[in-house]
Amino acid sequence: MTQGKVIPTSAEVTAMRKVTDHACNLHMQGKDIVFTAAIVWQGQVVAEARNEVGDINDVSRHAEVVAMAKAATSIGQRNLAGATLIASCQPCEMCLSAMRWAGIDRVIFAAQQANTDSAFFRFPALTLPDFHAACDGAFDWHGGLDEDRVAHIYAPGVAG
Amino acid sequence: MTQGKVIPTSAEVTAMRKVTDHACNLHMQGKDIVFTAAIVWQGQVVAEARNEVGDINDVSRHAEVVAMAKAATSIGQRNLAGATLIASCQPCEMCLSAMRWAGIDRVIFAAQQANTDSAFFRFPALTLPDFHAACDGAFDWHGGLDEDRVAHIYAPGVAG
Repeated sequence: MTQGKVIPTSAEVTAMRKVTDHACNLHMQGKDIVFTAAIVWQGQVVAEARNEVGDINDVSRHAEVVAMAKAATSIGQRNLAGATLIASCQPCEMCLSAMRWAGIDRVIFAAQQANTDSAFFRFPALTLPDFHAACDGAFDWHGGLDEDRVAHIYAPGVAG
Repeated sequence: MTQGKVIPTSAEVTAMRKVTDHACNLHMQGKDIVFTAAIVWQGQVVAEARNEVGDINDVSRHAEVVAMAKAATSIGQRNLAGATLIASCQPCEMCLSAMRWAGIDRVIFAAQQANTDSAFFRFPALTLPDFHAACDGAFDWHGGLDEDRVAHIYAPGVAG
C-alpha cells in the first residue's frame, strides 16, 4: 500500500536518476542537508532543486517547495496540474500540502518514510495513505524508486 | 475541543487585532487573497505578513510561511521556539507543518476551519486535533479570537 499505484514513465525514471545523483553528489561533498527534487511537466524536467533552508533561514525552503516555485517560473503559471513531483525522499507533510496547492496529483520518491530518520517528518503518526484518504484520493504516488541509491543518506539515525 | 487550550496573552490579543485589521483593510481594498499573519516573540510582534502567492507565483507563500521567514530574518535564527504564530484564519496543513519545522508550539487564529470555505484546506478530513494527536501534542492552539471581525472574509462560499 505505501508503495502506491503510480507507474513511473521513462521520463520520470530518468528524472529520478538525476534527482538521486544530485543528492548523492551533495552528500559526497559533505553537505548537511541533501534533499533534492525535480518537476516533470509534459515529459520534461522543468525544475531541479535542493533543500535551501540553511541558505536563507526559511524553514519552508524544502527541495520540493523550491522545485515547485522554480517550475512555476519556468512554465509561467503556479498551477502545475499534470506535473509530477520527483523527490529523493518521501515529501514531508508541508511539501505534500504545497504539492496539492500547486494542483499536482502525482508524486514519485526514492527513500520511503518507513526506512528514514523520524526527524524528517513532523506529524509522524500520519502516513501517506492517511493524507491520501483525507483528500478523497486526490493524488497518488510511487515510493521506493531508486531508493537503494540514497537509502544511506536518510537512514534512521543519520539526523542524530 | 477545536478552540484549543491556549489562553492568549495581552501581547497576543493586541497582535491579533493588528492581524485582523490588516486582513480587513486588504479586503476593503478589494484584494483577492487576504490572509494575514504575524509572529509574536518575547512579547513583541517581530514579523507581519500577508499571503504573497499571487505576487511571485509561489504556492508556498501563505501569510504564515512569509511571517515565519520574516521573523527568522528579524531575530537572526530560523528556530522560532517560544514564538507564537498569529493568523487571521486557521492555518492550512502546509502552514501547520512549516510552523512545526520552525519549532513553534503555540498558534492563535481568528476564523476557524468549521466556519470557513473548504477551499482553504487541502486535506479537509484531517482536523487540527488530528494533527495535534499525530505529533504527540507537540503544539497547542486557540481558535476563534476576533473571529467576528473576519468571518465575512472567509465564510463558506466566498471562494466560489
